[in-house]
Amino acid sequence: MSFNTFGRVLRFSTWGESHGPAIGAVVDGCPPGLPLSEADIQPFLDKRKPGTSKFTTQRREPDEVRILSGLFEGRTTGTPISLMIENTDQRSKDYSDVAKAYRPGHADYAYDAKYGFRDYRGGGRSSARETASRVAAGAVARLVIPDVDIFAYVSEIGGDAIDYARFDAGEIDNNPFFCPDPEAAKRWEQLVDSARKDGSSLGAVVECVASGVPAGWGAPLYAKLDSELAAAMMSINAVKGVEIGDGFAAARLRGEDNADPMRPGNDGNPVFLANHAGGIAGGISTGQPVKLRVAFKPTSSILIPVETITREGDASDIITKGRHDPCVGIRGVPVVEAMMALVLADQKLLHRAQCGGD
Amino acid sequence: MSFNTFGRVLRFSTWGESHGPAIGAVVDGCPPGLPLSEADIQPFLDKRKPGTSKFTTQRREPDEVRILSGLFEGRTTGTPISLMIENTDQRSKDYSDVAKAYRPGHADYAYDAKYGFRDYRGGGRSSARETASRVAAGAVARLVIPDVDIFAYVSEIGGDAIDYARFDAGEIDNNPFFCPDPEAAKRWEQLVDSARKDGSSLGAVVECVASGVPAGWGAPLYAKLDSELAAAMMSINAVKGVEIGDGFAAARLRGEDNADPMRPGNDGNPVFLANHAGGIAGGISTGQPVKLRVAFKPTSSILIPVETITREGDASDIITKGRHDPCVGIRGVPVVEAMMALVLADQKLLHRAQCGGD
Amino acid sequence: MSFNTFGRVLRFSTWGESHGPAIGAVVDGCPPGLPLSEADIQPFLDKRKPGTSKFTTQRREPDEVRILSGLFEGRTTGTPISLMIENTDQRSKDYSDVAKAYRPGHADYAYDAKYGFRDYRGGGRSSARETASRVAAGAVARLVIPDVDIFAYVSEIGGDAIDYARFDAGEIDNNPFFCPDPEAAKRWEQLVDSARKDGSSLGAVVECVASGVPAGWGAPLYAKLDSELAAAMMSINAVKGVEIGDGFAAARLRGEDNADPMRPGNDGNPVFLANHAGGIAGGISTGQPVKLRVAFKPTSSILIPVETITREGDASDIITKGRHDPCVGIRGVPVVEAMMALVLADQKLLHRAQCGGD
Amino acid sequence: MSFNTFGRVLRFSTWGESHGPAIGAVVDGCPPGLPLSEADIQPFLDKRKPGTSKFTTQRREPDEVRILSGLFEGRTTGTPISLMIENTDQRSKDYSDVAKAYRPGHADYAYDAKYGFRDYRGGGRSSARETASRVAAGAVARLVIPDVDIFAYVSEIGGDAIDYARFDAGEIDNNPFFCPDPEAAKRWEQLVDSARKDGSSLGAVVECVASGVPAGWGAPLYAKLDSELAAAMMSINAVKGVEIGDGFAAARLRGEDNADPMRPGNDGNPVFLANHAGGIAGGISTGQPVKLRVAFKPTSSILIPVETITREGDASDIITKGRHDPCVGIRGVPVVEAMMALVLADQKLLHRAQCGGD
Repeated sequence: MSFNTFGRVLRFSTWGESHGPAIGAVVDGCPPGLPLSEADIQPFLDKRKPGTSKFTTQRREPDEVRILSGLFEGRTTGTPISLMIENTDQRSKDYSDVAKAYRPGHADYAYDAKYGFRDYRGGGRSSARETASRVAAGAVARLVIPDVDIFAYVSEIGGDAIDYARFDAGEIDNNPFFCPDPEAAKRWEQLVDSARKDGSSLGAVVECVASGVPAGWGAPLYAKLDSELAAAMMSINAVKGVEIGDGFAAARLRGEDNADPMRPGNDGNPVFLANHAGGIAGGISTGQPVKLRVAFKPTSSILIPVETITREGDASDIITKGRHDPCVGIRGVPVVEAMMALVLADQKLLHRAQCGGD
Repeated sequence: MSFNTFGRVLRFSTWGESHGPAIGAVVDGCPPGLPLSEADIQPFLDKRKPGTSKFTTQRREPDEVRILSGLFEGRTTGTPISLMIENTDQRSKDYSDVAKAYRPGHADYAYDAKYGFRDYRGGGRSSARETASRVAAGAVARLVIPDVDIFAYVSEIGGDAIDYARFDAGEIDNNPFFCPDPEAAKRWEQLVDSARKDGSSLGAVVECVASGVPAGWGAPLYAKLDSELAAAMMSINAVKGVEIGDGFAAARLRGEDNADPMRPGNDGNPVFLANHAGGIAGGISTGQPVKLRVAFKPTSSILIPVETITREGDASDIITKGRHDPCVGIRGVPVVEAMMALVLADQKLLHRAQCGGD
Repeated sequence: MSFNTFGRVLRFSTWGESHGPAIGAVVDGCPPGLPLSEADIQPFLDKRKPGTSKFTTQRREPDEVRILSGLFEGRTTGTPISLMIENTDQRSKDYSDVAKAYRPGHADYAYDAKYGFRDYRGGGRSSARETASRVAAGAVARLVIPDVDIFAYVSEIGGDAIDYARFDAGEIDNNPFFCPDPEAAKRWEQLVDSARKDGSSLGAVVECVASGVPAGWGAPLYAKLDSELAAAMMSINAVKGVEIGDGFAAARLRGEDNADPMRPGNDGNPVFLANHAGGIAGGISTGQPVKLRVAFKPTSSILIPVETITREGDASDIITKGRHDPCVGIRGVPVVEAMMALVLADQKLLHRAQCGGD
Repeated sequence: MSFNTFGRVLRFSTWGESHGPAIGAVVDGCPPGLPLSEADIQPFLDKRKPGTSKFTTQRREPDEVRILSGLFEGRTTGTPISLMIENTDQRSKDYSDVAKAYRPGHADYAYDAKYGFRDYRGGGRSSARETASRVAAGAVARLVIPDVDIFAYVSEIGGDAIDYARFDAGEIDNNPFFCPDPEAAKRWEQLVDSARKDGSSLGAVVECVASGVPAGWGAPLYAKLDSELAAAMMSINAVKGVEIGDGFAAARLRGEDNADPMRPGNDGNPVFLANHAGGIAGGISTGQPVKLRVAFKPTSSILIPVETITREGDASDIITKGRHDPCVGIRGVPVVEAMMALVLADQKLLHRAQCGGD
């Protein structure tokens, strides 16, 4: 079923395909009175924008957002905020290969099985281009949680991880990989370039931290903060794994090592001596930074031939020509941040629905 | 916000606390005409039941389910199915320690921060006891997808993994760990027993496979099958990580190694030469087995003292007496299976809503 | 589709049939810390209880509610509140007539067309008995909106209306019809008794007023307060019409006569000189009393033979023996009140989600 | 709370204000493979279009719809369909009166109370202009239910009703009032023109009939077809009452007169001898035409002064200059049809989710 809405009271719906006239999002339930203009959104889109280095797709889109509704005199009115980004670089190309045969790793075969046919141009709805809509919506969500600071970065590409001893948040925007470790960034230049030249691709791990989340957002069970975040992250194209806090590593710890001991703090809030839980206990935020890790598989569009079948069921080989990200996880960084913002903003509003307060 | 309903058209809502008179679930949207009785549900509850070996909690509950509605002459009527399990072994014990101070790793502090107070008896709503309701609901869901075969097992305890070369599905029910590798099962006896004697606890990884899922269930983006499964699994108590298919390992592969090449099959369906994607491409099932992995953190209730603070904010130490699972992941196996069944049954119904067919 | 959940953040789900072991409701999203016990709910159930006069069904049920979850030390915890009412008077009777042929006006034929079969005992899920669950849930909702005063009454039975000049709210509980006009109440005794003796039944109009609703609850469009209330009321068995404020009468007024002029008030809030709008403008409460009218059709179960067909499609006549309300609208009064409370409580929480405040 | 999405599996979300750059709708969950182009939608928008006679607002908008997504080679793909209509006639006018004082009958005061401020230009979000988005979405919904025939008409203006003895569906499009009774249409010319000249306005009743709905759509209780339709209709601006079938008139009938007796039919389906129930019994369609009535209040924007207060709370008088419909119910006809189509299409999909079949 084609549910394209995410969120419970702060909801957003996205629409649009890679090769249609535009893509967009409608953000519903935003509190009224928040100052908002295109200038609040554009920087996040620019961060995600293709074509900024040779390590991302060479498709060039200005990705300029227009706000079509929900504003009056520069402030949100509480009604739906419609965001639209026109598609400008839909290079006319020959899609006959993709139309005829299924690209392994792509949704091609599954789409045909589900819908009976598919828009094969540039991936249609499953194009990573859709994530621009999320980034735009996420920029609105950030306004709802002004006290929360969210940042993400790439911690691993093709199995080559950063050294946390060299972690420097100030470095994240100094390289084309959103890499907090300058030495890893240097290595990745070669690594990614080499994959690109081979016509291959690489996977990546993105980590995201939200600080300033007060204790008390979330819910004990089905709408657990962990669960909402996992759904949000796993809804991003190419994502195949999510960890909250220590994630799978926690499964290797003993209880006493996985506990996050508490000590009295000076400001009335407890001081935690560790954060294995990633800022979430029993589905509810603890006041510690919310932390998660997201696994992006390698881009499925590669120039190396892969065995496949045609729509008619005959054996074939396929390569995917065109302009592709050699490592789609890199541009996933602003998308992960956006989804974090959207979930936390929604949870803030849900918390005050049930428990009151601002 | 306390959303205790999961699912989109086949929905279930659970209720109940560890120390109330009963727990239960309401399953709504079940197709009519399915033969159902308590006997279809009980075996799954028995599998999850506490007290079956020294490796699980010594709490003893018969966990007998009663169906209170939604049946007529032994078949589902299409109206809500109310399932109730009475709590029978609520041993009266002294909870004054837990009432006064927060157990690190537990939801105690977060609950107080959210709600202002909490039911501290046996974890209240966040007790793993709630998962019995899920298991009961999952048994109903299985009837909706009779052609799908679902099984889960423990693949790792405390960092000690099975050897896949020795994988034997027939072994899973031959040991108290749901372990498909008999040698690992032997090692785990010592491992878990030793943790138990230390008053400590261990984490675990549970893997789940659903075969017989046809190509075409799921959705391209926000209701991606991956996303629904991630939300479902991450909503289980103590779960901190979810991987679909190769998950984080996919992030370490190159594009050509992560592709699941296709060859023509004899029955008209393609044959896949690998299943890195875990049976899901672009959010939609491919016809391959759906596979996922779930990380359970070590039980937070341990007898080893941990630093904490009291409700008044004073420094303290706490140990958690009582009857606890030394490795809560073990009894997570039937819960993971149940959530898999619930998501797939819901997706089947959603698919036929949009695309027709049975 | 069998959606048995109502509400957006304060949600309730009901389950149960007329002839099963019990019926019930799960209330989810209730704010924490509200004092609650069975004693808060029982009076509302008693008001709806059958068998209190000869003008209602002679089925006798104590309708005693049990709270199975969501409480700790007498206060709501913020987790689901499970309410159960056992069915005690399921008189064993012969349903073979109803099993074989369709009762016109009842859901019998539609159920068979939808589900392929039906629970024909006492109406199954479509029994008015289900409304006891709503009344129980509504009692919880009232606690969420302590400053709102809700009352309903019957304004018309079988076309015989009250005289508003004699309206006396104090009379409502002084007669078996919840009638605010003592003279109408007298007339109705004869009217209803005569219909009962004829084996016939009568329709009724129920009106409901909620005062103390502050200005600002609701939404401009799809979740308009009018829309939510209409959905709530029209979900009650036997209801076929809903009016907000003047309703259809407003369609006969000119604009200047339908306006609710405002004057400055002493307390900072405006004084309205009329309330044609029923306290709702543009979908949002204005601070005036919220007013609506609900049309109940005559009970479809009558002793007068009606032409029908059998399950096999043959012509037949049917009469519906058993214990039925000669005017089901009478016992609709506490149900309408409950639905009003449930909608308003939900809207209060939604309002503070988006706009903050308590 | 600003929920601007309607529907359960076939959902649509609308956005936009009277004086923004555009308005639009996103339709999600549409089945794949349906032929669709702007030409399928435009005729319905033209029917609703302002400025077609002197009996509607003189605002002139071409209301040309663009489909921005969800199509491939002229067919729906199963992904979201984004529909946009540009606002072209936003006459610059002086809104200072409306900005300063509240128009009784409008949402002005309630908006300020809820959101703290409001977009006062042309009603902002609460402008009837929003209904163009619904009409566009409704045109898509009609494609989902090709066997259902839907038409609506005005049965009453300002209390002057049609004579059903003269009912002629062929007349509906022959006059500017969508009136099936040519004599009433003549009377209404004078009636509406006179109200317009007085600077006043009139209410209206719109009736809608959907034939071709098979038995079995809907649900027993909270998602009753009656309830869904009531919510849909009551969500339209200016609507204050909804009746299903005989509605309030049913409350004046005796049980035997309100029954819809059944006789065996030639085609295997029953023949009903009456349709008091409006084609819905127990919340589920019976196979008879689905019928409802909707009350539109008189347009609140009138040139006759009404007492009001200013934002500062001072007494004032207000008249609403500008181009307004003297009877907003007239242009409500295509909106009611659209909402009927949207609800029925959604219910068709829900029915096949639970019960299978196409």
